[in-house]
Amino acid sequence: MSETSKYIFNQTMIRVRDPGVSVAFYRDVLGMTLLNKFDFPEMEFSLYFLAYQDNSSSPIPSDPLGKAEYVFKQKATLELTHNWGTEKDADFSGYHSGNSEPKGFGHIGITVPDVHAACARFEKLGVDFVKRPDDGSMKGLAFIKDPDGYWIEILAARSLAEMIAST
Amino acid sequence: MSETSKYIFNQTMIRVRDPGVSVAFYRDVLGMTLLNKFDFPEMEFSLYFLAYQDNSSSPIPSDPLGKAEYVFKQKATLELTHNWGTEKDADFSGYHSGNSEPKGFGHIGITVPDVHAACARFEKLGVDFVKRPDDGSMKGLAFIKDPDGYWIEILAARSLAEMIAST
Repeated sequence: MSETSKYIFNQTMIRVRDPGVSVAFYRDVLGMTLLNKFDFPEMEFSLYFLAYQDNSSSPIPSDPLGKAEYVFKQKATLELTHNWGTEKDADFSGYHSGNSEPKGFGHIGITVPDVHAACARFEKLGVDFVKRPDDGSMKGLAFIKDPDGYWIEILAARSLAEMIAST
Repeated sequence: MSETSKYIFNQTMIRVRDPGVSVAFYRDVLGMTLLNKFDFPEMEFSLYFLAYQDNSSSPIPSDPLGKAEYVFKQKATLELTHNWGTEKDADFSGYHSGNSEPKGFGHIGITVPDVHAACARFEKLGVDFVKRPDDGSMKGLAFIKDPDGYWIEILAARSLAEMIAST
């Protein structure tokens, strides 16, 4: 459709309690790169954009305007919104994963070469699991939790395709 | 990081009440392509995967296994989960957008060449707006609602970068 031919699915936004903890998780556990951070002091929030960088694509511009434009042109960025203060507010009750009532959003999903190898590493790193690869009937598919409790599906393309074909 | 070097941010999953309505919206209004549909009759749900297809990438395989594998290797797919029956259940109270209490998930975001042109078209198509491009202080940035009430940010890369640089 010509009107939408240049549209890009740029971002998925979730709110996080503590960006230090969440950025470390998405960077060090899941291997994303922090592309940019934007602060909005008047409204007391910050945005963190992470993604798997395509090494074949052009390098990130170093000037602030070009760097911001670059982020908004990428496919598949994860946008973490931090409303200032939640990370040190003992009364903050946390964010809602969407997987208990009232339900809505379900998860993000990461394709990996080998779910068992990925999950063995996540176990070592102390990640919480919703479903380990060999739990339940869907073998080779896992769900982990991010620091706020959002669900992340861990899948391998070929084995998930085979599992679906066999159901 | 070598352990995660082949990871792909493949999917963002949201639950939808009526897949006929939602697939039509993401296809005909936002211009995505329905890549695949998977039915799970025993568990009474279906999954719909949509994405902006990259014309430079290889064509979608026609065999079911190859086609499913293809979907799980893409960046930035939108996965719609349909739990059978919600579309005809008058008592179904709908899904939670994440933007009222309890908050969590915020939105997905689509980068477009021209926010005003995109939104003029959305208006014609009867789309609901959370924020029109000229509402509020962030001019040139819009939020629309999908058929379940999930928020979708409509942004243009350069103008949003300029707006952020000026704050």
